[in-house]
Formats: sequence, structure tokens, C-alpha cells
Amino acid sequence: MAQLDQTHDPKLESWVQSANGHADFPIQNLPFGVFSPRNGGARGGVAIGDRILDLSAALAAGLFAGEAAKAAEAASGATLNAFLALGAGPRQALRLRLSELLAKGSPDQAKVEACLHAVEACTLHLPARIGDYTDFYVGIHHATSVGKLFRPDNPLMPNYKHVPIGYHGRASSINVTGTPVRRPRGQTKPPDAAGPVFGPCQRLDYELELGVWIGTGNAQGEPIDIGEAADHVGGFCLLNDWSARDIQAWEYQPLGPFLAKNFASTISAWVITPEALAPFRMAQPGRPEGDPAPLPYLTDAADQKEGALDIEIEVLLMTSGLRAKGLAPHRLGLSHARHMYWTVAQMIAHHTSNGCNLQPGDLLGSGTISGPDLTSCGSILEATEGGKNPIVLASGEERRFLEDGDEVIMRARGRREGFAPIGFGECRARILPAG
Amino acid sequence: MAQLDQTHDPKLESWVQSANGHADFPIQNLPFGVFSPRNGGARGGVAIGDRILDLSAALAAGLFAGEAAKAAEAASGATLNAFLALGAGPRQALRLRLSELLAKGSPDQAKVEACLHAVEACTLHLPARIGDYTDFYVGIHHATSVGKLFRPDNPLMPNYKHVPIGYHGRASSINVTGTPVRRPRGQTKPPDAAGPVFGPCQRLDYELELGVWIGTGNAQGEPIDIGEAADHVGGFCLLNDWSARDIQAWEYQPLGPFLAKNFASTISAWVITPEALAPFRMAQPGRPEGDPAPLPYLTDAADQKEGALDIEIEVLLMTSGLRAKGLAPHRLGLSHARHMYWTVAQMIAHHTSNGCNLQPGDLLGSGTISGPDLTSCGSILEATEGGKNPIVLASGEERRFLEDGDEVIMRARGRREGFAPIGFGECRARILPAG
Repeated sequence: MAQLDQTHDPKLESWVQSANGHADFPIQNLPFGVFSPRNGGARGGVAIGDRILDLSAALAAGLFAGEAAKAAEAASGATLNAFLALGAGPRQALRLRLSELLAKGSPDQAKVEACLHAVEACTLHLPARIGDYTDFYVGIHHATSVGKLFRPDNPLMPNYKHVPIGYHGRASSINVTGTPVRRPRGQTKPPDAAGPVFGPCQRLDYELELGVWIGTGNAQGEPIDIGEAADHVGGFCLLNDWSARDIQAWEYQPLGPFLAKNFASTISAWVITPEALAPFRMAQPGRPEGDPAPLPYLTDAADQKEGALDIEIEVLLMTSGLRAKGLAPHRLGLSHARHMYWTVAQMIAHHTSNGCNLQPGDLLGSGTISGPDLTSCGSILEATEGGKNPIVLASGEERRFLEDGDEVIMRARGRREGFAPIGFGECRARILPAG
Repeated sequence: MAQLDQTHDPKLESWVQSANGHADFPIQNLPFGVFSPRNGGARGGVAIGDRILDLSAALAAGLFAGEAAKAAEAASGATLNAFLALGAGPRQALRLRLSELLAKGSPDQAKVEACLHAVEACTLHLPARIGDYTDFYVGIHHATSVGKLFRPDNPLMPNYKHVPIGYHGRASSINVTGTPVRRPRGQTKPPDAAGPVFGPCQRLDYELELGVWIGTGNAQGEPIDIGEAADHVGGFCLLNDWSARDIQAWEYQPLGPFLAKNFASTISAWVITPEALAPFRMAQPGRPEGDPAPLPYLTDAADQKEGALDIEIEVLLMTSGLRAKGLAPHRLGLSHARHMYWTVAQMIAHHTSNGCNLQPGDLLGSGTISGPDLTSCGSILEATEGGKNPIVLASGEERRFLEDGDEVIMRARGRREGFAPIGFGECRARILPAG
């Protein structure tokens, strides 16, 4: 696990004024991403307040040396795959140097200032070429609630508390925040129809998830031990795993969700590093009494002690009605990463336990992280109990599922006494009508 | 669909002697792949008999012009993705020119001869960087037989005859023929055990599938119409989708197979083009009486008329016992692509019907293609009826599932009166003990 050091000092301030007290990107965060400035190509950068530090420019200005330069070089291109492949050492060296450069009193302020772009003048891109995308199902409240809707008699499968359930998703259709999502068409079987029909999805949903970027990978045939698993994490993001519930209900047996999920997923743009999250680790919440102990290949003392994440996650809805009346987005759910039944290290150890090879830039999703009640749901399917009880918005609008023009916004933040709070940046997308 | 032309003339012979009468690679085939000669880097080539034509060398020798040169350039690198992206026109131009160059009487024989390598002196590689891998389930006899074993009361789901069922697989662990496969470890729940255990897979299986290489892709949000779907196929291969049946039985609900499949898949090395397969198209066999008609988005007159494949597929087993006694591999199953309930065009139209984007170099698997009886099974699970009735080999050995050291060999061939038969080249791999 990442150690605490001077980069976490809550008193540390940046000469980039907007960073101080910034909800997402104070100097204690320093996440990596890929952006294009106006009239420029895609390149790697670091978010600081409402600015982005251009790593190519900073390298050219001679601001890095040694391990930090190596990491900055790898993080300066049009994808972060090479940077993710470097692992923790170079990444930490670069973080330390970035913290120095951006801190008040840095002797290099003028040189660094010349490498900054205003974020509103930039286009954000996917931070990495995603080789494979795996979605897990570790939100136990979600698994239970959704299981009840799909299988009233059998909500949680007998394997759930033994196996970190996961499945492969679609890498090609993952988009960066801000990219609109077109409502899918698909085959569904309405309960009252004689046969299936084909048309626009009627039960469009979001899923509130954490994403995990794989840093260093493993060779095929060589599992990652649970004790080493955290070292293979390159960072975190938010993930909206859009879901077409009517398509899903008809297609998912026996091989799992396919077209119900692969039309689009949306992620936040910034790779939040394990170092930035070091203050927000927590012990595994502990399994409810009577739950089975995980098998040895999923058990590690350090992971039990600090493998969980003290991260609040939130999903909001903006509609045309709210926009027209100048109202704020409606909070659909406020949840927390502690509702993950399995840790990220357990997900990685399980994924590779059969020899499956992970590669730098692969993305893992947590699965929907809902809390135990209606205010903490990570999907509208849960919040409206399968569409039965609509959500009523301040604009007077009602929602059973998502409508065209709706915009779903996800946020995440770490907050802990004695540390500067940090955020993930938004994961946001608007729904376009079926084409 | 690809047209018949002079490249399909069964009387055409090559000055490469081994090509004439070659089971896989006569001059009527001309498949593309990636290989390394001894002491050389990976590059694109064309199989002809027991030789490989080096496309970079042939380009340098000035043997191509116009569209053919453009295609040869794209097919000469370390992956064929750029070539697949070009689509049918340039591929056909290159095929025509290759046929001329390699035919008896070519004025360029001496120049071409200098560009040939003996295949036994070369290493074969994956022909493309696989972005996403999707596995379908269109072998209806397999779906029915396996369904019976996993769900005796409910073998074929109600959706099967309406939906070309598919799911996402793992791209990173796909290997080229010849790469050994390590037996996976995993979590299983033996029927008589109180809880799950972790250890080497006890029910290791192969799956006999056709693979489909995507050529030109589609933009996200823009489905491929069934009438255009065949134009997006870049080629075909054999696919062994190794399966750990004991891991699968315990993990697969509710989200589908995961670790039971993603430890390894093996494909044949050569991209068999749609043009090479043009003589081996056939009408859809016709659905059994009483089966529902496909929905309009899955219906196309040309696809009904010639969308199916007249391809024989075969799986064989070589064991240490057979090897020691100098015996031939044991034929585990002889099947045929006509047992696909859905065509490749239907798979592509369905996959993209929700706007999911396919990319050049994506791979689709057909799912296991079994015939209707015990001699035509595409998996050992079917051939031994879930391990109950062992296969007895000429060596006296018995197999209920695959054992360490076993080698699984797959072959495919097109044969039709009036045309030269062609083959796919082997898909072969040996099983290593769990690590």
C-alpha cells in the first residue's frame, strides 16, 4: 500500500490559486490524464485546480530528472499505458516532484506556469488504450436488490459470498466523460407480448461504479498473489456502466449481459493514483456474522487492515425541466465504497488466479455500489424498485427510467479528519434519442 | 458476398510445388498471417503450400502496384489490423495479384521465389492485435446438450431461437496455435463438499469453434445492417475456447462464464479470406418446422441464400500413449458449420444493433459447433456426456476430460465438387500441468 509522506500534508498549498480548497484537484491529489489544448494534439497532463500541467512542455523545460523524468516521459504521450506499465516507483517519484513544483514557494513557479492550460480550453480524452474491461459485481446491496427483481425466489446466488463474481465487458465502447450516449435499440420481450420485439430501450439505467486502472500486469499462467495485488493498481476512476434493463432481462441467460451493457460505458477522465488515495484507506468493514471466510487465495492480513476505500460516491440527475427552472441536479443516490463486499486486491487476485493475464491500461469495474436503502442506490432500477415507484424531481418531472436529454453526473470524494479532501472529477454524460 | 473469379479456377496450379494438392494452402486459398523468419522480426505473409511469401520483401522487389500495393503495404507489418481495416476492395486486388505471381508460368517467379520462407523455419504469431473478443453460442446442438447437463429441466432458454446469444470474452489471453496452455487453478464446489475449494481444474475441456476476424468496423451508435454485415468480415480462423467445466459450473450465475474461459484461447494462425471461402457458401439450412422466424433486423434474402458456410470442422486428440505407440491422433469429433443456428451476418447485425462498435481486428467466436450425435461433438463434455462415459483410445488410454500432456488439434476444410479443396491450417496446443 502507498505510504503517507509530505505530499499528503493538509497544510500544503499551491501557487495555483484555484487548487487551494478545490473540491477535486488540490495539490494533494495530482491525478494523471490525457488532454488536447486548443489547436494541439493529445498529450499527458496533471490536473491542478482548474488548470492542467502539460507534461511534455514541463519535460522540455527541464523540470524533471531521474525516475521522475522517466515517469513524466511515459505519461506525456497520447495514452498513459506506458506510464501505467512503470508501476509505483517512478509514479511516486514523479508525484513527489510535481508536489514540489506546484507548491507555494517553488523556485520553478515561472517555468511551470508556462506549462499550464485552463481546463475549460482543453478537450479531455480516455487516459489509456483499454485492452480488456472486466466488470465485477461486488456491491452486495445492489446484487441483492437486483437479484430480487430478476429472480424473486433466489436473489443472491450461493456462490456470491465465496466468489468475487465478474464478467468481461466491452472495451471499444468506453467513452470519456462528456461524450453523449445514444439510447440503444434492442430485442426485448414485453411480459404481455407473444414474442420478442425490436425497438428503442424503454428501461435505460445508469450504474454507479468505481473503476480500477491496472498498472503493471502479469504474464499469462502466472497469478498475482493477494499480497502483491495492490501493487498492480495504477489508479482509480468513476465508471457509469449504462444498462438497458429490458434488453438485459431477455438476453442474459445463460451467458450473462451483452447488448444490454456494451453500447456505452462512461468514465471520468483522471487517473486518481493509489498515492493520492493513501489517506483514504480503511479496514475491511467485516463480514456480517455467519458469512463464510474467504478462501486463502483471497485472504491477506494487510488487505483486511487497509484494503477497503473510504470514498463517498454520488450520482445526480440533470433534466431539461430542472435546467429550465434553474434548479440544481437531483441527487439520485449517495453511496460509499465500503459497500463493496470484496476489495480491489481480492478482485485482482481472483481475476488472475487461473493464470489470466492483466495488462497495463486494463480497466476493472467494481459493479454497482449501492448502499442499503433508497437514498443510496447506485441504479435507477433500485431507486424506483424496478420502475414501480417513480422519482419525483423538484421540477415536477417524474422518472421511472432515464429519458432522452437526461444527464447523469457521478462524483466521488475522499474525506478524512486531518487530511485535505480530494475528488475524482466528474463522470457525466447526456442521453441522445435512439438513432 | 465475394464473387467467383479466376483465382478460384480448380485447374490453377502454382510453381510452388508443395502447394499443388496441399490440404490447406493450395493457390486457391492464399491466406494472410504474421510470422518471423529465423533471425528476423515479425512481418506479414501469405501461406502457399509449405512456404510463406514475405510481403515486405515482395513489396521491396516491386511486385505490387496500385490497390494491390496499398493492401500489401498494410499487410506487411507486425499485425494485420491496418490490412483488415482496408476492407474488401484492396484485399481482392492483392489476392488477384498474388494468384498471378504464384501461378505456374508467372514471369516473376524468380523474384517471388527470393521472397519465400520455409514455414518450418518460421515462427507464427497472432495475425492481429485483438481489441475485443466476443464469443457467440450459435451451435444449437451444443447449446442443447450442454444446457441439459447444467440445467436438465431447461436446456434451451426461451430466448435462444430469437437472439444470437453472445458474451464478451478475454482478448489478452488469446494465443496462436502451438502455444502451450497451462491447466488453470480455480474455485469449484464439488457436489459432495460443504463449501468451495481451490485447486487445479479437474474437468478441462476444449471447444471447437470458428473464429471471425472483423475487417472494417462501425462507429459507435451506428449499427451494421444485416445486408451489409458480410462486407465487414475480414476473414476466418479456427478457435479453441478452452473451458474449465468445474470452475464454470460454480461461477457462471448470474453473469456468465469468466475464469472458466479466460485463462487461454487458441486460434489458427492464418486469416482465411471471404474470397477464399466464396466457393464454400451455402444457403441457410432452414429452421426446423415450428421454429420462429428471425426478427426483420436479422433477416436478409442474400444471407438466407448464401450466408451459411459449407465447412467441415474436426477436432483430434494426441496423447502420450498414442505418441509412444506411434499411433495417429484420435478423432474426437467431426462436425460442420451448417450446425450454426445463426449466420455470421446475423451475429454481426445483432452485435451492432444497439450501436456497439466493432473494430478491425476484433474477433468473434461462433461458439462450439457440435453435430447432432456422439461422433460430431465439439467438446469433451458432450462426447463423454459430462464425464460419465469415457472415450477409449487405440492406445488403451481413457479420457473423461483432458489430461496434462494431451494435445488438442483442430482442422477445417472446404470441399465442393468443381472447386479445389482448401483448409484453415491447424489450431493446436498441448496442456501443461497447473503451475
